[in-house]
Amino acid sequence: MAGKIVTISREFGSGGRTVGRKLAEKLGIPCYDAELIQKIAEESGFAADYVEEQSDMSAGGWFSTLFIDRSNGLTNQDQLWVIQKRVIMDIADQGPCVIVGRCADYILKDSYELLTAFIHADIEFRAKRIVEEYGEREESPVERLKDKDKRRAAYHRFYTDMKWGQAQNYDVCLNSGRLGIDRCVEILAELY
Amino acid sequence: MAGKIVTISREFGSGGRTVGRKLAEKLGIPCYDAELIQKIAEESGFAADYVEEQSDMSAGGWFSTLFIDRSNGLTNQDQLWVIQKRVIMDIADQGPCVIVGRCADYILKDSYELLTAFIHADIEFRAKRIVEEYGEREESPVERLKDKDKRRAAYHRFYTDMKWGQAQNYDVCLNSGRLGIDRCVEILAELY
Repeated sequence: MAGKIVTISREFGSGGRTVGRKLAEKLGIPCYDAELIQKIAEESGFAADYVEEQSDMSAGGWFSTLFIDRSNGLTNQDQLWVIQKRVIMDIADQGPCVIVGRCADYILKDSYELLTAFIHADIEFRAKRIVEEYGEREESPVERLKDKDKRRAAYHRFYTDMKWGQAQNYDVCLNSGRLGIDRCVEILAELY
Repeated sequence: MAGKIVTISREFGSGGRTVGRKLAEKLGIPCYDAELIQKIAEESGFAADYVEEQSDMSAGGWFSTLFIDRSNGLTNQDQLWVIQKRVIMDIADQGPCVIVGRCADYILKDSYELLTAFIHADIEFRAKRIVEEYGEREESPVERLKDKDKRRAAYHRFYTDMKWGQAQNYDVCLNSGRLGIDRCVEILAELY
């Protein structure tokens, strides 16, 4: 154990990533988010895009591999999970930081001093935000969110056996749509 | 709508009731908890003990009536639910306050300005607390908690169709065991 680590799980479009960045800045510690994908890509030898697709559960990602016969060994997704665990533990060993997503709360829960947060927001707030941030797509923003939520919940369930978004799994859960992103940052900074 | 109302849902033994009392004191507004049972008893004509037993889901409470044939009309529990709704809305109409439990968040969600909180804690923390507060029983504290949790979740599901303890249902969820009761009070007071 090397210090206090903040893990942020979040609903897609809730601004959890922004909360993480701002919190890290305020606390003067590093924030890991996209950097994690880069590190996992380096360690695994897979392309960063592929890693992102798999662990971000987009269409054709690991979800489609849920029912694959694993009796012949690990799937690519399972291998990525093993590497992801190692990368996150290596980062945690380097000292205090903020880690966004990637089941870091679950991976670190037994051996590190954590502050675990879950950021969520109403679907209207998130729909507006993803259009601003990622632009329009053929699918409606609400459909995209529902799909993402489902995949993310299933991913957590599969690899961690924790119920994603269940309050009891976190120290603190905040509705960024109701409280505002900056308020979420303040509360977490105070709790840290 | 008459002002801002704080609703506190909580796991049995998490200290949510104490958080509510202390918060109300700090904000200088009334707190309703046991008072609700008294009011529901008065309005329904049932004894306060009976009301508490039914809506607190203790052994022999409404849980056993879940599968009762309702084609002949409302059960006592259903009638209590109707009265509980009216009592809680009357209280809310009187102005800002803290309401602990009784599905107040669900009952008031469409017509009142709310701050909705869920207080929870690890089972070890809660087990210690219920023995301190309510004494030893034949059943172990952990068994008592598991039983209570199950009944409370089922009650919420039945009357509100909301998943009890699902972070997305609340503005803020706090682990009182990890953060401490006073910290929870401070955060809620700030958010108010």
